[in-house]
Amino acid sequence: MKIGVLGTGVTGQTIASKLVQLGHDVMMGSRDEANPKAVAWAKEEGHNALYGTFMNAASFGEIIFNCTLGPASLDALRMAGAENLKGKILIDTSNPLNKATDPWTLTVCNTDSLGEQIQRMFPDTKVVKTLNTVNTNVMVEPTKLIERTQVFVSGNDIEAKATVVMILRDWFGWREILDLGDITTSRGVEMFLPLWQSLRKAIPEQRFNIKIVSS
Amino acid sequence: MKIGVLGTGVTGQTIASKLVQLGHDVMMGSRDEANPKAVAWAKEEGHNALYGTFMNAASFGEIIFNCTLGPASLDALRMAGAENLKGKILIDTSNPLNKATDPWTLTVCNTDSLGEQIQRMFPDTKVVKTLNTVNTNVMVEPTKLIERTQVFVSGNDIEAKATVVMILRDWFGWREILDLGDITTSRGVEMFLPLWQSLRKAIPEQRFNIKIVSS
Repeated sequence: MKIGVLGTGVTGQTIASKLVQLGHDVMMGSRDEANPKAVAWAKEEGHNALYGTFMNAASFGEIIFNCTLGPASLDALRMAGAENLKGKILIDTSNPLNKATDPWTLTVCNTDSLGEQIQRMFPDTKVVKTLNTVNTNVMVEPTKLIERTQVFVSGNDIEAKATVVMILRDWFGWREILDLGDITTSRGVEMFLPLWQSLRKAIPEQRFNIKIVSS
Repeated sequence: MKIGVLGTGVTGQTIASKLVQLGHDVMMGSRDEANPKAVAWAKEEGHNALYGTFMNAASFGEIIFNCTLGPASLDALRMAGAENLKGKILIDTSNPLNKATDPWTLTVCNTDSLGEQIQRMFPDTKVVKTLNTVNTNVMVEPTKLIERTQVFVSGNDIEAKATVVMILRDWFGWREILDLGDITTSRGVEMFLPLWQSLRKAIPEQRFNIKIVSS
């Protein structure tokens, strides 16, 4: 499958590399036509790994991953262009985090979320929020944790969520995938990040996630 | 021990009853001198169970539980009186939730929290935030869940947190108690509630909690 990955940071690189390893054709998109990190990544990953602008990557992909930093996501997606995202699934892994504050603060929360903002800005795109509650290395290697843990999906389009569940399960190895509901449930998973920051400080291992335990 | 429990709702009743069962003298405090729910509770629980105003209960207790509804907590604590809370541990279980909205919204979040507001209002009281991330019945019966799960403590006073850890462990049965840090970490546990609401809708069992799993 042709997949566009927006963002050249750790999350973009990790997800894009995993997708290439799975045999997909992946274009990493960034602000510039030849971002040095994207160029280096593509060279490392071989001929299935391409790079270009946000617009190039969005146009290229049948499915798009948003791995840009949350505060820059709306801007990046605007550059990607509504016409290039139209009708497609946009998997939003971003968090609207201001990491300049300690504790971290969110740039949008409570009565709105970045997931909702993206969906409102691109009404013809099927936005599915997922993976934002875990560290990058857990995203594509959940089986490295000693027990099965949960990942969440939020979105308005049932079929798009079913496709994303398939991707999470069959490509990334997730076994516990919980559909939280429509895109407004992005608020909850984004507002989890301040607790996630505290957990990261309190827990010795860098890899961790939460498991839902009931009675 | 003499314990004041502020609030006559499900959380107040559950915690107060558990404390009475453990052999403590418990006064349930409310806005009125003889709140019908507090009167009925005391009658049911026997001679170790007392009731009175917020001020009576705060004055009575060596340790105080805040089990009032979050949006009313500052008001209730103001009625309890700084002089009656001075030097004492105040275990804050409340959440600043506006449940009139769907999804729920918080009345304070992101750059502040109810835990911090309470600590600022009562600088001579040792505020420890805990238990607010779980359903009431899980608070005092964590062992009913099929695995050990986490409960968190946030607060500025190390000794007060150690006392609260003892209470959570020896009185309520918690085995996994994670100290998140100072009272600013109340933000994270309070901002967990929107995700908690989604989980409650998505999970068939009413009793659940999260377990931290690492690699």
